Amino acid sequence: RRHAVALIPGDGIGPEVIDASLEVLEKAASLHGFALDMTRFDWSCDRYLATGRMMPEDGIDQLRPHAAILLGAVGWPARVPDSVSLHGLLLPIRKSFDQFANMRPHRLLPGATGPLKSEAFDILCIRENTEGEYSGAGGRIHVGTPAEVAVETSIFTRRGVERILRFGFEQARRRSGRLASVTKSNAQKYSMVFWDEVTEEVAADYPDVTVSRYHIDAIAARMVMAPETLDVVVASNLFGDILTDLGAAIQGGLGFAPSANINPDRSQPSMFEPVHGSAPDIAGRGIANPVATLWSAALMLDHLGEEAAGRSLLAALSAVTAEGRLRTPDQGGQSRTTDVARAVADRLS
Amino acid sequence: RRHAVALIPGDGIGPEVIDASLEVLEKAASLHGFALDMTRFDWSCDRYLATGRMMPEDGIDQLRPHAAILLGAVGWPARVPDSVSLHGLLLPIRKSFDQFANMRPHRLLPGATGPLKSEAFDILCIRENTEGEYSGAGGRIHVGTPAEVAVETSIFTRRGVERILRFGFEQARRRSGRLASVTKSNAQKYSMVFWDEVTEEVAADYPDVTVSRYHIDAIAARMVMAPETLDVVVASNLFGDILTDLGAAIQGGLGFAPSANINPDRSQPSMFEPVHGSAPDIAGRGIANPVATLWSAALMLDHLGEEAAGRSLLAALSAVTAEGRLRTPDQGGQSRTTDVARAVADRLS
Ligand SMILES: CC(C)[C@H](C(=O)O)[C@@H](O)C(=O)O
Ligand SMILES: CC(C)[C@H](C(=O)O)[C@@H](O)C(=O)O
Repeated sequence: RRHAVALIPGDGIGPEVIDASLEVLEKAASLHGFALDMTRFDWSCDRYLATGRMMPEDGIDQLRPHAAILLGAVGWPARVPDSVSLHGLLLPIRKSFDQFANMRPHRLLPGATGPLKSEAFDILCIRENTEGEYSGAGGRIHVGTPAEVAVETSIFTRRGVERILRFGFEQARRRSGRLASVTKSNAQKYSMVFWDEVTEEVAADYPDVTVSRYHIDAIAARMVMAPETLDVVVASNLFGDILTDLGAAIQGGLGFAPSANINPDRSQPSMFEPVHGSAPDIAGRGIANPVATLWSAALMLDHLGEEAAGRSLLAALSAVTAEGRLRTPDQGGQSRTTDVARAVADRLS
Repeated sequence: RRHAVALIPGDGIGPEVIDASLEVLEKAASLHGFALDMTRFDWSCDRYLATGRMMPEDGIDQLRPHAAILLGAVGWPARVPDSVSLHGLLLPIRKSFDQFANMRPHRLLPGATGPLKSEAFDILCIRENTEGEYSGAGGRIHVGTPAEVAVETSIFTRRGVERILRFGFEQARRRSGRLASVTKSNAQKYSMVFWDEVTEEVAADYPDVTVSRYHIDAIAARMVMAPETLDVVVASNLFGDILTDLGAAIQGGLGFAPSANINPDRSQPSMFEPVHGSAPDIAGRGIANPVATLWSAALMLDHLGEEAAGRSLLAALSAVTAEGRLRTPDQGGQSRTTDVARAVADRLS
């Protein structure tokens, strides 16, 4: 078995966490009898400063033949505005390949400690990734005058809302049979009432799944006060964005938060990336936490159909965090990125 | 000195927490040498079911002559849809009196315990209360068909953004001199880039205040991971709504979270209310936590210019929570609403 994987290390600590993952991925592949054909793309803010583009004009076409994309981090605001870097690389990939389901698991790895007293939670957030509040529609008039008005329009389509909910219900069915749908229908009476209605319709096809509806403010509070009461959480682009950073926080920080941008139609590549950004403040020092990227790589192996290898990688990662000897500075330790990755590789079976 | 105060107990536990506050407020007034002329309005879901209106047609005019409004809770979704109850009472008051600054302090009262390991934080959230994501603009087409599209438009005006930021900067100046401005300008390039620009302009008038800019996802995570790094936080209607529920969560739950809807122009009444809702599940049992309402009443006294009485009320409240003997069931105790209120009244000085 061979799988074509595109690597986009990106900016800042991105290349460090991607490089660290490579030996782990290669060892997992050889232990489990498959090959990863990895192609590296230097698309980044550096490339933008040198060429005027984050990626080549045919970048999306270059990625298309791959089964998956593993991405480090994109952006370096002090050098290139986010409006250029994110809109020139990360967001076009998510949209071009219609990676509509952004999946982020939130639980504490063994040995990890979070900011909450509660430690027993296991949440899977599923964020709509292609429309809604981040549609990019809007405008401004009377710019720079006292009369200025800015509008930003959220656009929700039935296709978009229905498919993310169906995706969520499928996940819920495989897990606990419980799904939380997130809206703010008492204050946003068009988009969110629509979301509620579609939820009700889709729910009719999944009588085995119990649905709870929460307002975004209430579920944000719940993630902190009673995270153990949540399982699969489905939310719009903005609400999911917020809840997954909150999820990252309660699982011990961005260093521990993986993510998968999925298009279930396998003719298009899905993308796997840590939730953290490029962290310019620690870039180049070899001390970035590789856990989020290694966990993302495990999600990628699952998606490629290499579930045994994915399980083995997650088990090795958990063994290293459980032992607690190797911790990067963000976790109060003094280990280096490569120390952690090597220890994970050593524990693969 | 006399102050006209409108009481709107509202629904569910609303009347219970308002009634409990009355004896405390009356004692505070008599100790500090002023009078509160309190008028009670029975506007509520009950009234809606009996008359078809949450408040009379001239309700806003009836409220106008008061210096302040103390509100319990509005809404009882099982009996009246939120779209009727909230849009028929709570939201029209906020909008008619242009109560554009929704202020919510988030800190642990002495003796209170929250879900975080961190306990040393003192945040003042200031939420824009009249426009933005809750403007109510939008629509749906092809309703109920596979082609349906729903849009919801956020509208931000320079006047609206500028005044809430100025309000925030004034508060920051009185506190630590630090202000956090919340946006999501990397994904919402009209409304939030506008907000960033206005922040920069207003900041120029406050060279003594240090401004940090956060994206909503990042600051939500920060409120959980490092709340002690935040002081005054200024956010849009939606972002403030989310952050203040999160703030309520970290301060020990909604039972502890007060709020003030302020129009600094004192010719219009401001409104004070606990952040919690009507809690139909425990309504009528006399066990609602009155702390959030008592704290809101203290904010009201401050606003009325009775700062000494406000301080005394907050001190009495803190003494009761610090002692920890009287706790309502939401805090793991067995006390009744009136027990807690009476203890606070007893400690007033
Ligand atoms: C960088 C930003 C555009 C991105 C997003 O909002 O999707 C990030 O916050 C994330 O959560 O992946
Ligand atoms: C009930 C609802 C309309 C209200 C709001 O969003 O303003 C509430 O969530 C609040 O925070 O006061």
